[in-house]
Amino acid sequence: MKKVLIANRGEIAVRIIRACHELGLKTVAVYATADAQALHVQLADEAVCIGPADPQKSYLNQPNILAAAANTQADAIHPGYGFLSENPDFAAACNDSGFTFIGPTSQVMQQMGEKSRARATMQAAGVPITPGSDHEFTTQTEGLAAAKKIGYPVMLKASAGGGGKGMRVIQSEAEFKAQFDLAQSEAINAFGDREMYLEKYLAQPRHIEVQIAADQFGQVAILGERDCTIQQHHQKVIEEAPAAKLDAATRKMMYTVSANAVKDIGYVGVGTLEFLYNGPKQFYFMEMNTRIQVEHPITELTTTTDLVQLQLQIAAGRPLPFQTTFIQPQRYAIECRVNALSAGQVTALHLPAGNGVRVETALYQGYRVPPYYDAMIAKIIVLADTRQQALAKLRVALDETVIAGIHTNLDFLMELIQEPDYIANQTNINWLDQLTQPITQHAVFTEI
Amino acid sequence: MKKVLIANRGEIAVRIIRACHELGLKTVAVYATADAQALHVQLADEAVCIGPADPQKSYLNQPNILAAAANTQADAIHPGYGFLSENPDFAAACNDSGFTFIGPTSQVMQQMGEKSRARATMQAAGVPITPGSDHEFTTQTEGLAAAKKIGYPVMLKASAGGGGKGMRVIQSEAEFKAQFDLAQSEAINAFGDREMYLEKYLAQPRHIEVQIAADQFGQVAILGERDCTIQQHHQKVIEEAPAAKLDAATRKMMYTVSANAVKDIGYVGVGTLEFLYNGPKQFYFMEMNTRIQVEHPITELTTTTDLVQLQLQIAAGRPLPFQTTFIQPQRYAIECRVNALSAGQVTALHLPAGNGVRVETALYQGYRVPPYYDAMIAKIIVLADTRQQALAKLRVALDETVIAGIHTNLDFLMELIQEPDYIANQTNINWLDQLTQPITQHAVFTEI
Repeated sequence: MKKVLIANRGEIAVRIIRACHELGLKTVAVYATADAQALHVQLADEAVCIGPADPQKSYLNQPNILAAAANTQADAIHPGYGFLSENPDFAAACNDSGFTFIGPTSQVMQQMGEKSRARATMQAAGVPITPGSDHEFTTQTEGLAAAKKIGYPVMLKASAGGGGKGMRVIQSEAEFKAQFDLAQSEAINAFGDREMYLEKYLAQPRHIEVQIAADQFGQVAILGERDCTIQQHHQKVIEEAPAAKLDAATRKMMYTVSANAVKDIGYVGVGTLEFLYNGPKQFYFMEMNTRIQVEHPITELTTTTDLVQLQLQIAAGRPLPFQTTFIQPQRYAIECRVNALSAGQVTALHLPAGNGVRVETALYQGYRVPPYYDAMIAKIIVLADTRQQALAKLRVALDETVIAGIHTNLDFLMELIQEPDYIANQTNINWLDQLTQPITQHAVFTEI
Repeated sequence: MKKVLIANRGEIAVRIIRACHELGLKTVAVYATADAQALHVQLADEAVCIGPADPQKSYLNQPNILAAAANTQADAIHPGYGFLSENPDFAAACNDSGFTFIGPTSQVMQQMGEKSRARATMQAAGVPITPGSDHEFTTQTEGLAAAKKIGYPVMLKASAGGGGKGMRVIQSEAEFKAQFDLAQSEAINAFGDREMYLEKYLAQPRHIEVQIAADQFGQVAILGERDCTIQQHHQKVIEEAPAAKLDAATRKMMYTVSANAVKDIGYVGVGTLEFLYNGPKQFYFMEMNTRIQVEHPITELTTTTDLVQLQLQIAAGRPLPFQTTFIQPQRYAIECRVNALSAGQVTALHLPAGNGVRVETALYQGYRVPPYYDAMIAKIIVLADTRQQALAKLRVALDETVIAGIHTNLDFLMELIQEPDYIANQTNINWLDQLTQPITQHAVFTEI
């Protein structure tokens, strides 16, 4: 492997270009016309325009990307995250055209890409999934039996459901008996359907994900976990490593089932298993991401690894460089995602820096943020000995950051990290959306 | 301690302001009129102008600095490096005016500030210093006895000397006998003085320094060493940690004598003992720096500490947070110093970033580098598992750096780190000055 084409843009393209260069690999950037002035285009050894601004016609344009790889004699293609990174057809097309796809096999991607199939596969490999009734039911007796098997609290749902109609959180058998008929009546009234369904009710779960890496020789490594509980409208906002609220026994179980599953499915590459965590020994597989994750830097900082270099090395057929399966994370890292709330020119830019501060971005002063792509324009990442120290560092780093000329969520982030519940780490995946006094997305426009 | 005045400018002032803010301390910047637009002025909570551009009238102006501290009700003064940082009178004046001076006592600073007194103090504390003849001599017999005591090779010098007259590197007793009369004749001819002097000859020494920290309770910590062998005209250019060429036995000796000496002199604060290293068990004290060192970040990265926070904590009367005296460095860090070779406006700026890359600077795009102060405008620091990987990272980081509008030494640094001797770590403190094909200071002016 001598030359890598990066089929992506923005901060992750810059991140991958640096990793390639550090390993002595040449790089090819691809770009849409709207990105002609983008940083990844300037940092790569070569750059090829692959289409107009519309991502369908450029960053998702498989024939043009493969043609760019062929024309520049690239050996490998790194998809980054988003765009084509979890598209099994693209992985297969890369291989068919003679390029190494930096990621797992097309087959494994397909297997993990379909949610129900992924759940079934993981369950077969011994990974816990959210318990639910095996099939729909229409009578209270069936429902009670299913609820007993799952364990209270349960969520009773209308099978045809939606919009909360026929839905009840049920804490006990007595409550089940009291609520079932009412809920079913609602379902019948709303959907004309009497079929009901049960699911384990997770009151205030945290999102905890396990970073894995596996080589072509069957060796697997677990690089700790990340807590991505702070989400807004299902978008991650802040990520932390390790997960301070995860008890040691459950962490060990999570690591063990993850390692076994990764071996079981014959996974090769880096990847992430996402779980809902509901308290000691209660964790449930949601999905597997078969690519580099946005929040990978906090794992890198706490495990002193380079996950993108690792991807490249695994793809080049190198064995994992670790002596043990479970890499012990050290210290505490936090990442927050800086989003553009408007497009436009960055008229002044000051990014934080210093001991334990890392910024991943493709911004530069004078750069025009285009309106066509992901709003995330920078990741501010801090590393310190403890969560408290990391939070202090993040506050100073955010306070110092200036991105003038466009609207950003910097003020929102600053308010968020000063919320008492967040500081106390008393949150769950719904916390930010359900704040009684919501933090306003000020959309402050900074002029210099 | 609640508010700290930073009696400095440039990158170190920015560095100190960040550390203060991370510890919840308020900051006061001081500045010369030429620095009104400087970054440290913008980042501090308050800023006070202390005089015109001439450092004698501003950054060295003790009354004005003390007045600024009084007017802003600061509790403590951090001197940074350079300027007043090693001035015992200033330390005393701070204390006399009721401010905590962030550094050791005025007495210890005085003791270490005078070179011959520092050497004598350190020798008394058991630290090896460069051996020399105890006194001048005029006969071969006396000289031979002294040389035997010092050990060959020795440097024979004319006591009244200079310019190489009467000077000889002597490898053996036979050579001493053959050379002594000739050398003495030269001395008599050149200076009319027959007195000769001997010193241990260090052919190709490396500069290795030990980072220490000591609290007010007598606890001492050794935070590893730095290799600062790459120097040009006695200015450090590149620093590395740990010192890859230092043998383990000598490292241990260096650490032990340093810890003992620091205890012996009752040192409180962070500090550095500089040594010449000439091979196994041959190391000689040069001087002690009683302040934060320019190259402190490579120690921070390899020991996961924060030396500036440590300075503040020690000054606030807190005990060292370490469990052991000898902190084991991890991984490998390299720093290189980016110098401005001309003053002027930075018209475009792109600094490297990413996994294991840290930049300390007070530059921003649009900033005018004033002609009055230190040429060093940025430190590019990398961290990786091995020296080889750190060098690869440094190459990529330097390659990516753009500082347009002024002349810099970036090209010089890029050539330097690609010199085979440097890559092989086969260098000594004279290596860069004595290169047969010198690396030109291109003074490239980059226009965008």
